[in-house]
Amino acid sequence: MSHNLLAGKRGLIFGALNENSIAWKVAEKAVEEGAQIVLTNAPIALRSGEIYELAKKTGSEVIPCDATSVDDLSNLFTKSQEALGGKIDFVLHSIGMSPNIRKSRSYADLDYNFLDRTMNVSAISFHKMMQVAYKNDAIAEGGSILALSYIAGQRTYAGYSDMADAKALLESIARSFGSFYGSKKKVRVNTISQSPTRTTAGNGISGFNVFYDVADSMSPLGNADSESCADYCVTMFSDLTRMVTMQNLYHDGGYSTSGMSIEAVEMFSNHLESDKK
Amino acid sequence: MSHNLLAGKRGLIFGALNENSIAWKVAEKAVEEGAQIVLTNAPIALRSGEIYELAKKTGSEVIPCDATSVDDLSNLFTKSQEALGGKIDFVLHSIGMSPNIRKSRSYADLDYNFLDRTMNVSAISFHKMMQVAYKNDAIAEGGSILALSYIAGQRTYAGYSDMADAKALLESIARSFGSFYGSKKKVRVNTISQSPTRTTAGNGISGFNVFYDVADSMSPLGNADSESCADYCVTMFSDLTRMVTMQNLYHDGGYSTSGMSIEAVEMFSNHLESDKK
Amino acid sequence: MSHNLLAGKRGLIFGALNENSIAWKVAEKAVEEGAQIVLTNAPIALRSGEIYELAKKTGSEVIPCDATSVDDLSNLFTKSQEALGGKIDFVLHSIGMSPNIRKSRSYADLDYNFLDRTMNVSAISFHKMMQVAYKNDAIAEGGSILALSYIAGQRTYAGYSDMADAKALLESIARSFGSFYGSKKKVRVNTISQSPTRTTAGNGISGFNVFYDVADSMSPLGNADSESCADYCVTMFSDLTRMVTMQNLYHDGGYSTSGMSIEAVEMFSNHLESDKK
Amino acid sequence: MSHNLLAGKRGLIFGALNENSIAWKVAEKAVEEGAQIVLTNAPIALRSGEIYELAKKTGSEVIPCDATSVDDLSNLFTKSQEALGGKIDFVLHSIGMSPNIRKSRSYADLDYNFLDRTMNVSAISFHKMMQVAYKNDAIAEGGSILALSYIAGQRTYAGYSDMADAKALLESIARSFGSFYGSKKKVRVNTISQSPTRTTAGNGISGFNVFYDVADSMSPLGNADSESCADYCVTMFSDLTRMVTMQNLYHDGGYSTSGMSIEAVEMFSNHLESDKK
Repeated sequence: MSHNLLAGKRGLIFGALNENSIAWKVAEKAVEEGAQIVLTNAPIALRSGEIYELAKKTGSEVIPCDATSVDDLSNLFTKSQEALGGKIDFVLHSIGMSPNIRKSRSYADLDYNFLDRTMNVSAISFHKMMQVAYKNDAIAEGGSILALSYIAGQRTYAGYSDMADAKALLESIARSFGSFYGSKKKVRVNTISQSPTRTTAGNGISGFNVFYDVADSMSPLGNADSESCADYCVTMFSDLTRMVTMQNLYHDGGYSTSGMSIEAVEMFSNHLESDKK
Repeated sequence: MSHNLLAGKRGLIFGALNENSIAWKVAEKAVEEGAQIVLTNAPIALRSGEIYELAKKTGSEVIPCDATSVDDLSNLFTKSQEALGGKIDFVLHSIGMSPNIRKSRSYADLDYNFLDRTMNVSAISFHKMMQVAYKNDAIAEGGSILALSYIAGQRTYAGYSDMADAKALLESIARSFGSFYGSKKKVRVNTISQSPTRTTAGNGISGFNVFYDVADSMSPLGNADSESCADYCVTMFSDLTRMVTMQNLYHDGGYSTSGMSIEAVEMFSNHLESDKK
Repeated sequence: MSHNLLAGKRGLIFGALNENSIAWKVAEKAVEEGAQIVLTNAPIALRSGEIYELAKKTGSEVIPCDATSVDDLSNLFTKSQEALGGKIDFVLHSIGMSPNIRKSRSYADLDYNFLDRTMNVSAISFHKMMQVAYKNDAIAEGGSILALSYIAGQRTYAGYSDMADAKALLESIARSFGSFYGSKKKVRVNTISQSPTRTTAGNGISGFNVFYDVADSMSPLGNADSESCADYCVTMFSDLTRMVTMQNLYHDGGYSTSGMSIEAVEMFSNHLESDKK
Repeated sequence: MSHNLLAGKRGLIFGALNENSIAWKVAEKAVEEGAQIVLTNAPIALRSGEIYELAKKTGSEVIPCDATSVDDLSNLFTKSQEALGGKIDFVLHSIGMSPNIRKSRSYADLDYNFLDRTMNVSAISFHKMMQVAYKNDAIAEGGSILALSYIAGQRTYAGYSDMADAKALLESIARSFGSFYGSKKKVRVNTISQSPTRTTAGNGISGFNVFYDVADSMSPLGNADSESCADYCVTMFSDLTRMVTMQNLYHDGGYSTSGMSIEAVEMFSNHLESDKK
């Protein structure tokens, strides 16, 4: 059921790869809630072609953009405003990639060129996107910018490697640019720290199933899925949250403040018992 | 403009005193968004009679309740469900009072009976409300419970005295009960940490104007007002945020993560200059 | 090996019950480091008589005090200064007790008289101690006051019940009084958030073994024991940390910032595997 | 007065430039407390020659090292162990530099080559240092690694620009590597978040005087100076803090948890009054 929460709004969605992507669900929901959107992703991610199904379904244009390229971003914001007929009201940044993780390099054996790449793709791209948008005055006053993050920005998860550092940097960029953009244009910038989610990116992480299952048992509501994440993003794009900025918002079924749930105590009790046998 | 975000939902609003109250605005917005509500407040707070205007305007019943009394709360939940025709979907706790502040007692000269009263009225009432609701199975599955808090739960504000400790306790109770209620009934519990707001309660605090003005200059978006707070509460009552629980959510124009805004640097530069002259 | 870190300092230690108590170890270490101390505990806790062994070993006096009684505290500070020959330089508050936990009442079935008692014994006693000390000008300029806390003040642990809320309140009182005492007398106030520790108090908590074992496997250094906690307290009492105040300091082998350690991934992998079989 | 807290320990100190540097004071204190140390800095920072006075005073060797160069770091750890006669027990990372700040580029007009340089010098150098140390097994079991940070990692300070993001990244690297190094070698890694300090680096930041003065008036104990910071570092290098890891420790006179001190209320009251006249 639509509430027309985003009626008349124009949005830009980075990072929809396939129907498991959170960005994919956000795109669907945003349109359902009355928005017009443009979809974008890196040229290489467009190859599979799945995004064009989403474009068709949502009546939206696809504009390729390597989010680490200032030129590509300039082109994207220009073209998006043309396609949508005005300034952008909301943006989703759902981009993350670590060559160190892909190559299974341990955190004490990082390749520093890979690390630069992780930072540039997963975090600095967020700054570039906002700097380009700001210089081109492409975001409407009161606009809302979101990036997807993960609690690894605060706590360590063995196997998540340099992506943890990228998330910490991403969240800092949200605060820093949010301060600037808020003062100048009332544009707000937040990150959503999402439960582990079975996406293509998530599945690439060693130990992901453990993070997923333990988080699920630790969270009083269980892990949040991508559908509910998309719903949450919609509220953050809407005017109803117009005074929320520079926050890292946990969307995680309560995981972040759960030391040990009832379910987890029971589960671990059994295991610890059996370990002692 | 209504989005019917709360269509079909039943709510209970504690703490509307007069039209400056945040709870007052929440009541209005919730009804605007399609909810049916019951209003409640302590018998003494009902005396001025203003709440009956709100009741009239929102088509809602007023049920007196001293939120520190388990009996009153039991009666309230029973009567509310009768009045609304079913289980409660959302609750707002907007209650706070410190006799130590009223009597201008310094933080190193607290009266301990007053302190007990501050804790009981401002924080433990939140536990009682939830315990009574839980025992009476009065909240619908997936329901949403909110309490209003203030950043004094994390940082000290000279003059805010024992209310700071009450807010820390309130936020802890939200997490603790949120864990329990989430596991058992998918009910979620959060606090909203609101900008200083010109309410009857706020105005009773010595130094309030300084908190207000400094927060306003420190926050990139300025202080959040009670209208925007009510809008934010509506999103938290809606199903769109169904996986958010056990969080303390800053609704503050960015104050909580602002060390020093551009405006504040300018303001202080002038003042510090003039101090040196 | 002693470093004479507390040479010439006078201390007051609350809460040593037996040799498993953290306060017991702190007393020993403080004396080893050159301090003179007074030991205190509630009359009922003195009955077992073990504390007199500690008093003998450390050459210190025992002064009974119910820390919820302002009169007892006044007497304690007066007598302690007499015994030690001057103002107090450091204080340890290691006091916590929940009748709700003792009576195994669930968090949604709290007895409210018990809850008041939990708060009074475990948290408000800390305020009383400082208010009495302040009014009697019993703490030397630059003095250091510590209370022992637990991460349940930030995250929920099933079974820890209303003690979680007491710890949140305790930590808030540390900040609030620390702000006041720092401004007035350069006295600093901090809490140490300690790993689960096998003390008499810890062993009374249902699920304690699970908290303990999981925390141990989650912490890169393993759980911190009471010996190392005592060493840490000594640094916080010393002048070397004179500018640290109003902090909650994790002494936990890294647990608080560990989402999932290497060891935990391995342990859980095995268990989750076996669950699926 | 020395406590011989670091007797027999070997340390490596990065970043002493001149006698205003925090690293300079740490070097002096560490030696006073019984340690032997090696001093290092970038070749360009050694040019002024002041560090050789410190070397003379502390009886230590200076080994030049560009901390962004893995080769330089390898050489440094090899030579340092030779000079000190064994594995390193403690390391201080006090390195930060932003070409964007030097060139007064606004946060919405960053040069991205400069940004890469800020991240590499100020944050990634910390990872490189630890990775090189780990691969060469250069740190003794139980060793302690510290980096100096600033609260801009959590809150925005207009004018601090991309250094805020560098500090967030630095603190994340501390957690991530701390998790790894703790599990493998019991080595602990922490950051100290220091008050604004009048160093050469601090003075280069526009608005620094405002940060400094406001922080001083907001902090119940006033700003922490570099002497007290050095004392605090000594406790963190000592064995007394052996179970503290992966923490960001505020050394700031209480600033981080002070919303508004008594002094600040008074100061602002006067200013806000005069603004209204």
